[in-house]
Amino acid sequence: MLGLMQDWPLTVDRILDHAKINFPRREAVTRSVEGPISRTTYGTVWRRAKQVTNALIERGIRPGDRVATLAWNTERHLEAWFGTMGMGAVLHTVNPRLFPEQIAWIINHAEDQVLFFDTTFAPIVDKIAPHLKTVKTFVAMTDRDHVPKSEVTHFVAYEDFIHGHAQEATWGGFDENTAAGLCYTSGTTGEPKGVLYSHRSNVLHAMAANQADVFGCGASDVVLPVVPMFHANAWAIAFVAPMCGSKLVMPGAKLDGASIYELLETEKVTFTAAVPTVWLMLLNHMREHNLKLSTLKRVAIGGSAVPEAVLRAFEEDYGVEVIHAWGMTEMSPIGSIGKLLPEHHAMDHESRIRAKLKQGRALFTVDMKIVDDEGAPKPHDGKAFGRLLVRGPAVARAYFKNAGARNDKGECLEPDGFFDTGDVATIDELGVMQITDRAKDVIKSGGEWISSIDIENIAVGAEGVANAAVIGVAHPKWDERPLLIVEPKPGAEPTREQLLAFIDGKIAKWWMPDDVVLVEKIPLGATGKINKLALREMFKDYKLPSAQAAE
Amino acid sequence: MLGLMQDWPLTVDRILDHAKINFPRREAVTRSVEGPISRTTYGTVWRRAKQVTNALIERGIRPGDRVATLAWNTERHLEAWFGTMGMGAVLHTVNPRLFPEQIAWIINHAEDQVLFFDTTFAPIVDKIAPHLKTVKTFVAMTDRDHVPKSEVTHFVAYEDFIHGHAQEATWGGFDENTAAGLCYTSGTTGEPKGVLYSHRSNVLHAMAANQADVFGCGASDVVLPVVPMFHANAWAIAFVAPMCGSKLVMPGAKLDGASIYELLETEKVTFTAAVPTVWLMLLNHMREHNLKLSTLKRVAIGGSAVPEAVLRAFEEDYGVEVIHAWGMTEMSPIGSIGKLLPEHHAMDHESRIRAKLKQGRALFTVDMKIVDDEGAPKPHDGKAFGRLLVRGPAVARAYFKNAGARNDKGECLEPDGFFDTGDVATIDELGVMQITDRAKDVIKSGGEWISSIDIENIAVGAEGVANAAVIGVAHPKWDERPLLIVEPKPGAEPTREQLLAFIDGKIAKWWMPDDVVLVEKIPLGATGKINKLALREMFKDYKLPSAQAAE
Repeated sequence: MLGLMQDWPLTVDRILDHAKINFPRREAVTRSVEGPISRTTYGTVWRRAKQVTNALIERGIRPGDRVATLAWNTERHLEAWFGTMGMGAVLHTVNPRLFPEQIAWIINHAEDQVLFFDTTFAPIVDKIAPHLKTVKTFVAMTDRDHVPKSEVTHFVAYEDFIHGHAQEATWGGFDENTAAGLCYTSGTTGEPKGVLYSHRSNVLHAMAANQADVFGCGASDVVLPVVPMFHANAWAIAFVAPMCGSKLVMPGAKLDGASIYELLETEKVTFTAAVPTVWLMLLNHMREHNLKLSTLKRVAIGGSAVPEAVLRAFEEDYGVEVIHAWGMTEMSPIGSIGKLLPEHHAMDHESRIRAKLKQGRALFTVDMKIVDDEGAPKPHDGKAFGRLLVRGPAVARAYFKNAGARNDKGECLEPDGFFDTGDVATIDELGVMQITDRAKDVIKSGGEWISSIDIENIAVGAEGVANAAVIGVAHPKWDERPLLIVEPKPGAEPTREQLLAFIDGKIAKWWMPDDVVLVEKIPLGATGKINKLALREMFKDYKLPSAQAAE
Repeated sequence: MLGLMQDWPLTVDRILDHAKINFPRREAVTRSVEGPISRTTYGTVWRRAKQVTNALIERGIRPGDRVATLAWNTERHLEAWFGTMGMGAVLHTVNPRLFPEQIAWIINHAEDQVLFFDTTFAPIVDKIAPHLKTVKTFVAMTDRDHVPKSEVTHFVAYEDFIHGHAQEATWGGFDENTAAGLCYTSGTTGEPKGVLYSHRSNVLHAMAANQADVFGCGASDVVLPVVPMFHANAWAIAFVAPMCGSKLVMPGAKLDGASIYELLETEKVTFTAAVPTVWLMLLNHMREHNLKLSTLKRVAIGGSAVPEAVLRAFEEDYGVEVIHAWGMTEMSPIGSIGKLLPEHHAMDHESRIRAKLKQGRALFTVDMKIVDDEGAPKPHDGKAFGRLLVRGPAVARAYFKNAGARNDKGECLEPDGFFDTGDVATIDELGVMQITDRAKDVIKSGGEWISSIDIENIAVGAEGVANAAVIGVAHPKWDERPLLIVEPKPGAEPTREQLLAFIDGKIAKWWMPDDVVLVEKIPLGATGKINKLALREMFKDYKLPSAQAAE
């Protein structure tokens, strides 16, 4: 028997409709790419987004067609966002930090027909335009006076693109499972894979992301997403803010400490979100100029683990609550949130800090489990670690064009329907998850797993160590055993014995590295993380002393 | 093009699953019907709810079958709730405050097969049992020692009913539009009509109800729903609390001021919700004994308009934030929430109090509009009033068995798909709605509408007036004109001229009552509201002086 409730498809246009009806005069403030601070309202964003829809329709865009943006967080990006999704076309946000060749590959793979871009990125567009096979219209997100000159292609000014179009157009009215957005994972190995969000997944994810224990924003909040709209929906904030009526502050192209600080203060921001590097820049700026935060209450930090120093600085020095978040593009992106539980509130300050350094607990709508190689669940004791699998209405089932398919339905899922995050994690008695390793980096020794990250975190504390990495090296008896690779500080010469003695007693005996190698420089990837792939390649023929002994 | 996100149907079993996995040891505390305070956890509720499912299956209950409860808010009610819904059967919550004949009619209409009841209601069950056509099993929600004796039928003790059943059973796995709950409107006119909630509507409504600007509860909150689970899902709290991990405190049968106060303090409640009469009892109790509230932060008040004295007492005397809510059974039930906007925060205290007396702004997922008799929208200026229409995924489309159908699809909707609330309201520039009248009570004079409630609210302030009512009386020229009916205070004899002079200048000239009548007693309905139907019947042949003049 079916219920008798109304059919009200979960489509994202309803979010901006809600803002237009209930918060028409709430501001959206942008540090414009042209320079000045620009102010608009949800009412105006709604009307101009409708103009975007009409302009797209005039250019032949139909529901299901892909429209790309290569853009900062700005009011025009917000208009293009809702104008594209609202009509049932697919907004493909492209990450401008990728190499131009990757950007071209992605745009061709997505078969984008229109490319909206900020003038900052005109040189990239110029460079890739000859290689783009499907883009018919290049829209520079500015007015006619600021359109960059191009020798290669015709750039239309955004203001001319929408000018004269009607401020009403039909949005929604389609299946809530219709594709709304497309975002490619950067993928350290293999080609980028496209995650195709649906209207339903975006709406549900935004509602989950704004539960009181997650972002918890309301109409009296002022929200500054430093996290980019070009990657994983700006952590849902581009949906959450109009949904709940928060004033929205967008930083445009300037993410340095001074620029972000200025916006936080002048716009009276109460909630902000970004990756740790942004906060390092802000904290440095504030310390250098002896500044305070007068309105900020909460900061969400994710993308990579929150460094303890950043956590302590916000909470202890500035009185700002840190919300540690974890997720991934394939999860829309939020998977877990480090909001404290009553059990944590009963602990002392240091224990709370340690709890906050974990990645947090699952949102409602996210099912999370840790399993061994055979898929059997591991206990939630904060010690046992396993592959982290997730499931939910905002978790990917397949990649665009069936990239990375693992079954004949084109899905990228485990046999039980869960998505493998590629992370290895523990979950403690309170349900709080902590990433301990990437699955491909974990060392499998005698059927048991050793966390490379745990050993690295200890080794970097030893005298004379600038950086440390641990990888698994083949072993005839144990399958793999840990090899510690150390980059000494300039002039330092730590010995194998000193380093092992330092680690001894801090980890289980059988986790102890079988050998230590000093290298001049540990290779880092584009995001500053240790490039384990390169290290494994470097040491693929390395013979451990213990391996020789076992042979 | 469809998105590629996971299929994860929104079924309510996922809510209790989430609590069991993430908050297994969070408490659910009940003032048991047997007397003592009883303590359980979400983990145990989950296991016992599974036992309920297995016990129901054993008794032949299949998905789609209706299972009734006639019960207070207790842990057993919570178990029966999720145990029934989880398996795809329909939980029919019956309001024990109805007349026994109505209860029997409703149970027969719903074709309930099992009746769970609290021992408090055993006399009702005994009385109606001979008239129940479909109920095969009567479960007294207690243990064997406390089962009341019955001459009429066999009462099974709840503890015996679930005893020995497995603590695992399959939940969910069906269409999210599957019926989950059934609740009849009390209906002052005509027969009660059943609202058939779906799993989807319940999950979405709970997620909407726990946005930060609505209930805003988290895992550190302690939530006491005085609002009954037997009516409109306890305002979603029976779903919200396990969804976000709040500790749940349930008052059982004792809703008096002393009992509620005791629970608020001993259990350290931070959020509670009930109708105004409950709060009048609590406030009287606290004043009488000079008590304070030491942990309560927020109180949601709805069901009828918040009286100014209650609002001021909580906010001014006890420092507790009042959240004025409005809704109806057909809306799951929450439609609007009186959470203040930044524009209100900029006002002075008295203006904020006036704003809080309004019914509030629409939740995300609720579309709300005011229209005239022809369906044309009225302006949002806080003055124009019109019929209040609503739409959303948790708003009824039709009643059970097509009761009250208005079209050939069996729906109870307006031609544009909206549901007519039967209320007349204004919406102000900030989107805040205020109910001004029931549509059937509004006075239609010369094509314009006059609010009966507005005039009544003024008239009760006049000297010597105990109660006042305004109804529309037929008029040959204006269609209807207002008649003021006054119940004087004992011994008082206010005159027509005194009363009209008091009102004059406080409302528009053309709103002035055409005549005044004194009556000994203004008839009240079962809920204490003025019975306008009876008044209209009493005065149906009344000739206004102005009507005689116009003839």
